[in-house]
Amino acid sequence: MIKVEEENRGSVVLRRAAEYTPPSSWRTWLIGRPLQTADAPHQTIGKAIGLAVFASDALSSTAYATQEILIILAVAGTVAFGYVFPISIAIVILMAIVTISYQQTIHAYPGGGGAYIVSRDNLGELPAQIAGAALLTDYILTVAVSVSSGVAQIVSAYPEIFAYRVHISVILVFFIMLINMRGVKESGAAFALPTYFFVVMMYITVGVGLFRALTGSLGPVIDPPELEAIHALQGVTAFLILHAFSSGTAALTGIEAISNGITAFKEPRSRNAGITLIWMALILGSLFLGISYLAREIGTIPSEIETVISQLARTIFHGQAGLYLAVIAATTVILVMAANTAFADFPRLSALLAADGFLPRQLTYRGSRLVFSRGIALLALVASLLIIVFNASVTRLIPLYAIGVFSSFTLSQAGMARRWWKIGHLEPGQELKERGSMLRYESGWQLKMVINGFGALCTLVVMFVFAITKFRDGAWIVLILTPSLVAIFSSIHQHYRNLAKRLSLDNYGLPPRIPRHRVILPISGVHRGSLSALQYARTLSDDITAVHVCTDPEEASKTQQKWEKWGDGVRLVLLDSPYRLLAEPLLEYIESIANQRQPNEIITVIVPQFVPKRWINNLLHTQTALWLRLALLFKPGIVITDVPYQVE
Amino acid sequence: MIKVEEENRGSVVLRRAAEYTPPSSWRTWLIGRPLQTADAPHQTIGKAIGLAVFASDALSSTAYATQEILIILAVAGTVAFGYVFPISIAIVILMAIVTISYQQTIHAYPGGGGAYIVSRDNLGELPAQIAGAALLTDYILTVAVSVSSGVAQIVSAYPEIFAYRVHISVILVFFIMLINMRGVKESGAAFALPTYFFVVMMYITVGVGLFRALTGSLGPVIDPPELEAIHALQGVTAFLILHAFSSGTAALTGIEAISNGITAFKEPRSRNAGITLIWMALILGSLFLGISYLAREIGTIPSEIETVISQLARTIFHGQAGLYLAVIAATTVILVMAANTAFADFPRLSALLAADGFLPRQLTYRGSRLVFSRGIALLALVASLLIIVFNASVTRLIPLYAIGVFSSFTLSQAGMARRWWKIGHLEPGQELKERGSMLRYESGWQLKMVINGFGALCTLVVMFVFAITKFRDGAWIVLILTPSLVAIFSSIHQHYRNLAKRLSLDNYGLPPRIPRHRVILPISGVHRGSLSALQYARTLSDDITAVHVCTDPEEASKTQQKWEKWGDGVRLVLLDSPYRLLAEPLLEYIESIANQRQPNEIITVIVPQFVPKRWINNLLHTQTALWLRLALLFKPGIVITDVPYQVE
Repeated sequence: MIKVEEENRGSVVLRRAAEYTPPSSWRTWLIGRPLQTADAPHQTIGKAIGLAVFASDALSSTAYATQEILIILAVAGTVAFGYVFPISIAIVILMAIVTISYQQTIHAYPGGGGAYIVSRDNLGELPAQIAGAALLTDYILTVAVSVSSGVAQIVSAYPEIFAYRVHISVILVFFIMLINMRGVKESGAAFALPTYFFVVMMYITVGVGLFRALTGSLGPVIDPPELEAIHALQGVTAFLILHAFSSGTAALTGIEAISNGITAFKEPRSRNAGITLIWMALILGSLFLGISYLAREIGTIPSEIETVISQLARTIFHGQAGLYLAVIAATTVILVMAANTAFADFPRLSALLAADGFLPRQLTYRGSRLVFSRGIALLALVASLLIIVFNASVTRLIPLYAIGVFSSFTLSQAGMARRWWKIGHLEPGQELKERGSMLRYESGWQLKMVINGFGALCTLVVMFVFAITKFRDGAWIVLILTPSLVAIFSSIHQHYRNLAKRLSLDNYGLPPRIPRHRVILPISGVHRGSLSALQYARTLSDDITAVHVCTDPEEASKTQQKWEKWGDGVRLVLLDSPYRLLAEPLLEYIESIANQRQPNEIITVIVPQFVPKRWINNLLHTQTALWLRLALLFKPGIVITDVPYQVE
Repeated sequence: MIKVEEENRGSVVLRRAAEYTPPSSWRTWLIGRPLQTADAPHQTIGKAIGLAVFASDALSSTAYATQEILIILAVAGTVAFGYVFPISIAIVILMAIVTISYQQTIHAYPGGGGAYIVSRDNLGELPAQIAGAALLTDYILTVAVSVSSGVAQIVSAYPEIFAYRVHISVILVFFIMLINMRGVKESGAAFALPTYFFVVMMYITVGVGLFRALTGSLGPVIDPPELEAIHALQGVTAFLILHAFSSGTAALTGIEAISNGITAFKEPRSRNAGITLIWMALILGSLFLGISYLAREIGTIPSEIETVISQLARTIFHGQAGLYLAVIAATTVILVMAANTAFADFPRLSALLAADGFLPRQLTYRGSRLVFSRGIALLALVASLLIIVFNASVTRLIPLYAIGVFSSFTLSQAGMARRWWKIGHLEPGQELKERGSMLRYESGWQLKMVINGFGALCTLVVMFVFAITKFRDGAWIVLILTPSLVAIFSSIHQHYRNLAKRLSLDNYGLPPRIPRHRVILPISGVHRGSLSALQYARTLSDDITAVHVCTDPEEASKTQQKWEKWGDGVRLVLLDSPYRLLAEPLLEYIESIANQRQPNEIITVIVPQFVPKRWINNLLHTQTALWLRLALLFKPGIVITDVPYQVE
């Protein structure tokens, strides 16, 4: 087990495998047996499961995107509903642009290339931090919104559980958290079935619908919900169309998920991830177009009472049983699943940010199942808090939710455009290494730059339209939150940088040996515990001062008498404490000694500490030693030694 | 400031006044400036304020005692209401017996003689613990019941705040807590006015009522509430009368308060406390008799809708304005005040129990205002919890509430009877010192013993009747709670006794000096922090082993290289941790070293510890050192030394 590795300059280095194996516990039962670091590469996923894990967020948006467009168009009356299909086509074109852009990103950044990395390498630190903040906010909101909205579907079916919707939502979040704690492969398997069930159900719906439309057997919606009263009908303006377009772009949320999660894929990672992205875009685009086309065809009415999907399904399937119920169930489940996408990406992104020193380093720690378990737990916690604060209300959460996505789209594509520009200015054959990728000259970079640049422009416009039209609904919260997060990132970064500087051994001369110890020994009384600390103190130095804080004159004189018998000639200071405080006078005394210390003299405070056998018994003792320790840690030149004395 | 007190056997003892004075803070603003221990004797109270502090609990019971009797009698129909006055007379006689008994107690125990002390000195440890448990429970319930009931009165006047009754109750509890934290004198002053206001208002009511009854101008209650439907009218049985009697004895709750609080009185304490007790009994008895007499005279009906006091006041004062409103307001306030009595007694009793080692020692600590602030906080906390759990419902809290009082009455009076017996068997002139008092022969001890014995018997009977008739309403909770508390007392006592034995210096031979240190130095990397810990380690021993847990091979080889340069020839062990754990493998390694240690060899684990300037920055570091320390504390023979390294 032990082998001497090297003997060099007098330093013996031994290498040794720890014999510790984690015992089976409730954690094993909950999330599975711990995995060794060497097992890591096996925890990756193929394309089919990858689609289920990373696409549920994007696919779930087909459940509401068409409806969002119709709601905006409704202010111009039912005549305006004709625009839904052209707008949908425009959105699908935008989707195609974004997909192509991300396709290029995935191949350029095989180590994971979300908006954060692309911005960092091509645009600089601040844009990267903005992208990071926007994405983290977005992932948290994805969890809160999707789970709340999924629970809202159940609640509309069973109104009697309305009062428990917050509880149910939070329980669901923690359930998804646990599945993710088990590891990405298992969570993929758990989520593959419902995702594919949704895709199949939607294709059946759209397929049957189109077939019946072509054969002329598809009539209009029977008994549609009433169009909600509009104060004054507006005309169809360019702004209205733009507004409807931007609302419909909700269909694009989640499309970036794969580019963040490339490392979760089996080798060849970039290729697998890229193919998965194309599949996802094709499914998403075709379903969205099909739904929008059919929705106009049968004359659905956007309403809070009945969703467009519901109107579509019951018209296509003749009523509310069988296939209809399956569609509704699948829609409900996919909305909850969408949260899982965020659980796959948030921990990876936060680990990236942490590795760069913008978030606490602990987030880079892989837990017993080799996933970033702290990131997973953090996401569950913050999302649950959000659900509780917003009372699981989707309406109040939704407006917070798209700005982050579109700002990260914009930054990512602008970064890619800049990258093409850099590549175009390289010599053929020249290579440039950046932190996240390798740059090589490519011909045709101009077209690619234009595509990315155009994509960036489109998403930028969408972002501004979103921010302006939804400002009062809550978008302003994001405009406060994102800069705050960036400020937090910076201050964390500052801390780590300072720390590294202060710890650095560059230009460090080993300080001279410590010539002399002064020992201070606070005692609460004279007993075996304090005497064993005294024994220890004697091994350090001959300059020992025992200190007893007197709050009770009787006890003080008892301590004095005992010390004269047992104190072995060591000096005792009795500190009168008129305000009956223990730690504060002691601290003040130690400080006054510390202020007089000579250079290269070190002060060691030896704290005798009872250790009761059972934890609960600590409640029966004043934890003065603990407070003293915490306060002394902040004073330079003082070492604190605990001499434990186990009793019972 | 510093003077050498003594030089003896080589031990120099210095006495020194701590220069530390507590700074002004939010606490000063909240509860007043800290007081020196030397100020203690001034914080006592005279008879007038003593009556207000200690009597509000007892006096407040006149607000409901008559009504409780009528409610029981109602099962036999309105004809049975005639028994209310004779029963009240019987209760007042019982009250007189209890008062005389406590009068004797107060003079026998000038240092404070509640049921706990009397039982401890005369009946033994177990009865004392039962009395202590019963009283503590009772004080907590007093706070919960009185505050809830006071708030219920406000709520019946303003039904719109019903939803906030728990919040209001808890806020009131913490308000009373704060006043008590300021100290007994101030809290007395704050509470004197409302108590006297209540007493005056009640005397006016009873006085005007009696005058009008004598002059024949007092008619029956106009429009009384309906008598609630009784399933089947029962006859008047002895059990019914006894049951009504026991319900009415609620008037006696709180009468023991003064005997617990004797030390709060100005000198001569016993005399002042005794006189206050007599005043209290006279006021209580006369008001109770007056109310019971008038209640029968005007034909009040016991009801949940309108209290007897309310019916009385509006009949006597012709309607619901002016004096009527003053009576209702005074009644509300006195109910809240009653909680204050518990706040005066609970901390004293818990400090007594703590000094005897039955409760955590911290409860004997006098806070900055010389009151037992921890006991006060504990009471507020537990009472608030109870209010929250029982949703501030008086009806559900009340049945828990009287058994404790009557068991403590019984034990206290039985103890006094046993004391008279002991006194009677002393020689004249002989003195016997007990823990709480001094015994001297007194003639006439037989009569006094009979009085106390009769009192004990009466209260015992009442206690049993209470326990039987109210068992299903919640009295069973007390029958579980009291033994549990006694068990907790015993286990705490056990712990302190064991501790004292293990720490005792009797038969203790100073162990031989420690010949040899082995030092283990866990390092997370090689940097200024770990090197300064290494410097310190060198002063302790030449046998040093640095240990680095490797979770990342790259980092491990970096650490190794750096150590070879900077490690000063000290041995480094690299511990491979396949499960990426830090603390556990380290702990296992240290244990394996500890198990091999030679006798009288001591192992010192030196933990280099970053100390960020700001607390919040600790969130940015894994607190491995902390967990290691906590785990190591439990291993014998290991000393833990923190070498702090302040950064920023």
